[in-house]
Amino acid sequence: MKMFKRLAAQTALALVCFSAAAQDKIAETYRDATARIIAEATSPATAANAWNRLAELTDKYPARLSGSTNLEGAILWAADQMKRDGLAKVRVEKVMVPHWVRGQESGAIVRPYPQPLALVALGGSVGTAGVEAEVLVVKSFDELDARAAEVKGKIVVYNVVYDEAADPIVAYRQGTQYRGSGASRAAKHGAVAALVRSVGPIGHRTPHTGGMRYADDAAKIPTAALAAEDAEKLQRMQDRGDRTTVRLVLGAQILPDAESGNVIAELPGREQPDEVVLIGAHLDSWDLASGAMDDGGGVVAMWEALRVIKRLGLQPRRTIRLVLFTNEENGGRGGLAYRDKYKEQLAKHVLAMESDSGVLPIRGYDFAGTDKARAVMAQIAGLLAPLGGTAIGDRFDGADVMPIIAAGNVPAFAPDIDMHRYFFLHHTPADTVDKIVPAELARVAASMAAVAYIVADMPGTLDRAPVKVTQ
Amino acid sequence: MKMFKRLAAQTALALVCFSAAAQDKIAETYRDATARIIAEATSPATAANAWNRLAELTDKYPARLSGSTNLEGAILWAADQMKRDGLAKVRVEKVMVPHWVRGQESGAIVRPYPQPLALVALGGSVGTAGVEAEVLVVKSFDELDARAAEVKGKIVVYNVVYDEAADPIVAYRQGTQYRGSGASRAAKHGAVAALVRSVGPIGHRTPHTGGMRYADDAAKIPTAALAAEDAEKLQRMQDRGDRTTVRLVLGAQILPDAESGNVIAELPGREQPDEVVLIGAHLDSWDLASGAMDDGGGVVAMWEALRVIKRLGLQPRRTIRLVLFTNEENGGRGGLAYRDKYKEQLAKHVLAMESDSGVLPIRGYDFAGTDKARAVMAQIAGLLAPLGGTAIGDRFDGADVMPIIAAGNVPAFAPDIDMHRYFFLHHTPADTVDKIVPAELARVAASMAAVAYIVADMPGTLDRAPVKVTQ
Repeated sequence: MKMFKRLAAQTALALVCFSAAAQDKIAETYRDATARIIAEATSPATAANAWNRLAELTDKYPARLSGSTNLEGAILWAADQMKRDGLAKVRVEKVMVPHWVRGQESGAIVRPYPQPLALVALGGSVGTAGVEAEVLVVKSFDELDARAAEVKGKIVVYNVVYDEAADPIVAYRQGTQYRGSGASRAAKHGAVAALVRSVGPIGHRTPHTGGMRYADDAAKIPTAALAAEDAEKLQRMQDRGDRTTVRLVLGAQILPDAESGNVIAELPGREQPDEVVLIGAHLDSWDLASGAMDDGGGVVAMWEALRVIKRLGLQPRRTIRLVLFTNEENGGRGGLAYRDKYKEQLAKHVLAMESDSGVLPIRGYDFAGTDKARAVMAQIAGLLAPLGGTAIGDRFDGADVMPIIAAGNVPAFAPDIDMHRYFFLHHTPADTVDKIVPAELARVAASMAAVAYIVADMPGTLDRAPVKVTQ
Repeated sequence: MKMFKRLAAQTALALVCFSAAAQDKIAETYRDATARIIAEATSPATAANAWNRLAELTDKYPARLSGSTNLEGAILWAADQMKRDGLAKVRVEKVMVPHWVRGQESGAIVRPYPQPLALVALGGSVGTAGVEAEVLVVKSFDELDARAAEVKGKIVVYNVVYDEAADPIVAYRQGTQYRGSGASRAAKHGAVAALVRSVGPIGHRTPHTGGMRYADDAAKIPTAALAAEDAEKLQRMQDRGDRTTVRLVLGAQILPDAESGNVIAELPGREQPDEVVLIGAHLDSWDLASGAMDDGGGVVAMWEALRVIKRLGLQPRRTIRLVLFTNEENGGRGGLAYRDKYKEQLAKHVLAMESDSGVLPIRGYDFAGTDKARAVMAQIAGLLAPLGGTAIGDRFDGADVMPIIAAGNVPAFAPDIDMHRYFFLHHTPADTVDKIVPAELARVAASMAAVAYIVADMPGTLDRAPVKVTQ
């Protein structure tokens, strides 16, 4: 998951026709259709069907990491199911993806108080047959730099607390700085490995995996997520004056890129089929997770949105295109491949919608685009009060559609979700379908269906302009 | 943890002197001393010291399962610390304990959708180099019996839901029936292994271990706790009609009994040193846990109780004896050995107190003994309002003192704790000191200190009578 805080419209260049008068009446025009969509998408039968589909996906194909047989199985399964659903133009578009595998791994305190540590390699880490060294625990990059002279030959432990009182996304972003670049920052000072306190709330001493990147100008040292409880323990030991030695074994390997694909299906537009509302989510997951919340729930919500519109016989003016992206978690190649394949058509992508923040209570929505377009989206969101909040914020979140926003000035929209439960499960084996509440899944599907339908059907398209992406 | 619902006084035979008049004024007599004890035990400095002691115990000697070097290390450490504390008659009394070891273990679905299962052997299980069989999921013993014809050659999975809405102890007791005897019940119908859904609330797909017992008249088949999420998954697969094959490897072994010990320290009574108020908790823990809540917190609370009384210079009329029992978790040999060693002195054990329900908010207290004695305890509990509830229930809980209650009619007392957080962590790697709140630990210590002091000092001893133990 990547995000940016604000998309600032830089010029007022309207790229497509904007029928201001007609768009003033959108709420009025689509009130009845929205009510029908919400009723259908949130009916107990629809909610149960959607949940069962998510259960089937995650039971049969958990651990859908790029390069895995499970991800490829899920892709074929999804395409097959889409055909059975009667969706149009079902296809798998080839994408080459990174192929990192975890292997056997373990960590332990070997001196002075031998005991196992709860840790998991971070995605992208190199492996190690075994590295054993004294640990240096630091609470920040500042402390690392201040103690640079002590780092050489050590295993650096970043004990950065995930602030459970903060907005989850704020706490998460702080943590991911350490997860993402902690290894290289430590390596520059001579560390032999880096352990990063799990980015997530404390639960069952469960480390959360996630992606990391090596800097070009530092040695590539092995790196793992460490359970918060264990980071606290190593901190206490250091504070007591113990010199603690840890041993780390990571069987991780980076294999040659593998073939994967984006799964696509459509509901063709009745008048301007070349104009597209994209609704997307990502089918891949981390290897340790079933990927029910991240992002199977988004996949099923978007998919169900398309099915509900079709089932109600609501063929909109424009095409709605469902894209299940591959490789969001450790590369973003699915989003990049889509951008490249459709680069000539991005001007006709009227809106990109993404669900990758969990299928949980809806606080509102986020939009990236011009103020004029935002006013239209606010009208539409106003119709969605039965599903949760209706406010439109500007903290758009969606790694897979980021490339087409940047390349094509495509306006973008996403649900703004209460992510507390999301980050509890995030990137752990606990991300399983039993944590998904059918009614919450259904409400996300309903909101996405209504918005996609209205924007695909309304008179004129959304105002758009070049935007500056601030990550 | 074992418990019984009610101790019914069967005769009115008072074994020791009971000075009714003096005991009517206990609250009045001990109000000031109790206030001093509470103030001292709950001061921030005392709370921090107690928490730090618990952190040191569990950081240095986690996984204190009977027979382990960590348990023996903890025993020596505790005895040494008690001597440094200036406590009297510090000793380790030898106890031979069962020695079960876990070994390497794993479980996986091998067909039709290969994936790992989250499971851990139950304590006492035999090992298996590998058993692979189709699973049969049942929701109860009734369902097992009804489907007896299908069991032969299968791995039985007990998918018994832990009722998170119920009183935790009620939910726990239901689950432990399956954990304790599920293997033998399945083996009688020809099962080759048994997996028991974790007894505890859903968290991070973390299986909770715990003890089990084989029946004499059934084959000993390997058995493990299965994460709740995985039990639900196997249930869904069965409900969909999948024939699911699971492979189970358990490296568990039962080794010859090992030497261990109960750690004992005393505050000698000033007038009747041969009369004893026992305050106990258990030092051993499951191998997967740090044993901070179960039962390091109880250990430190009782220990701190004794230190607070001593620090305040309050030498009571009778002796207060601190007993850190060994082997509560998988044998109860510490409690049995204490009973046997002190069998001639049990008539002079005036009260047995145990803390093994966590150091969490105090709802009240539980007492096992005569109504007359209960009335005295109610007076004492009435002084403890600043620490939480003051009601006295009859659901006494304390596996280690059970043998002396049964053998010696010793009245028994324990805090009645809100156990919701306890069972979330119970018997998992998540039972770590960071989950312990210093002020909550301090309040349990304060309550135990006040009750122990008053009963050890008051005029006369508690009424007592033979009791019927109903487990």
